[in-house]
Amino acid sequence: MNSEYSDALGNLVDQLAKLPGIGRKSAQRLAFHILKQPDKEARLLAKAIIDAKEKIHYCKTCYNLTDQEYCSICRNPNRDTSVICVVEDARDVLALERANEFRGLYHVLHGAISPMDGIGPEQLKVKELLLRLQSQPTEEVIIATNTSIEGEATAMYLANLLKPLGIKVTRIAQGLPVGGDIQYADEVTLARAFEGRWEI
Amino acid sequence: MNSEYSDALGNLVDQLAKLPGIGRKSAQRLAFHILKQPDKEARLLAKAIIDAKEKIHYCKTCYNLTDQEYCSICRNPNRDTSVICVVEDARDVLALERANEFRGLYHVLHGAISPMDGIGPEQLKVKELLLRLQSQPTEEVIIATNTSIEGEATAMYLANLLKPLGIKVTRIAQGLPVGGDIQYADEVTLARAFEGRWEI
Repeated sequence: MNSEYSDALGNLVDQLAKLPGIGRKSAQRLAFHILKQPDKEARLLAKAIIDAKEKIHYCKTCYNLTDQEYCSICRNPNRDTSVICVVEDARDVLALERANEFRGLYHVLHGAISPMDGIGPEQLKVKELLLRLQSQPTEEVIIATNTSIEGEATAMYLANLLKPLGIKVTRIAQGLPVGGDIQYADEVTLARAFEGRWEI
Repeated sequence: MNSEYSDALGNLVDQLAKLPGIGRKSAQRLAFHILKQPDKEARLLAKAIIDAKEKIHYCKTCYNLTDQEYCSICRNPNRDTSVICVVEDARDVLALERANEFRGLYHVLHGAISPMDGIGPEQLKVKELLLRLQSQPTEEVIIATNTSIEGEATAMYLANLLKPLGIKVTRIAQGLPVGGDIQYADEVTLARAFEGRWEI
């Protein structure tokens, strides 16, 4: 509690400052903005927070976020059910959907293997992926975890786990981002771009 | 409404993206954070928003924000009631209080004169300042509006308005910020720092 504010204002600043990437200065700016807005706006924001918490949960199949029993992608009959793309986070699903390239289903792990943070496969939706692969004929699993150390470790772990099951396991390509400038690219990215080169 | 999300999530992102300085990417990050938090945290945030809107209003004397009839500064019997410091915004009061230099009272204008934005003296708490000066013996009015064009225009306007009433009107000093580097200071600031120089 911050004694320089009146209690209700200090409390709002405290609560906003708990959000990621929002420092005390930003929290103060947001709080004053909320106070200046019409009552209705503040109510809409508060209601949206409560509603989202109450209604949103994991899709029973792929662990994406949804307010239904199954997410809109799993419910879509036009999706190719023989390919599953494994991602770390529900936000990755949104990003990949925006790319409009992949027409299969997803599986959201909700994290990556990170022994330093005490996160192993049992903290992720890995067991759920195995159960899913057993019940659903799957030709290919595309691993689209991040290209960070944790993402790579997770990709390797999953590849070793799934290959013995006779499923084709692939990894998304690494290289220069589109529109990227070679002179500004880091050396690891450039090395990967060379490794993964293909004939025109 | 954003079709890529389920409704409750899209609504939360939309509401968060209305906040100043929060773009869609940040709003998405905040929304996913809120969804990951325990229910209790989200409820505390929603409640803080509603509470602040319901309880906070303007101090009847100085138009600072408060959840009482009069703000904590106006209620404090140890403050010097003969000096009033005029500021643009309630946040300026917090900043000046942190400086721990001023022991008088404040008057919050809630803006600055800006003809471009259609803000004249009648949109600010100027009339309220005049009424206050009539009912309360005041020796000095310190104008601590911003050093922007609007803040300076407001300071000039107030000085012209108050001086004929026989009240001492002063303006906070402008110069090099403490810890400031002369080589990085802009020329206007340096010119003001020279104008306002004092004998050691």
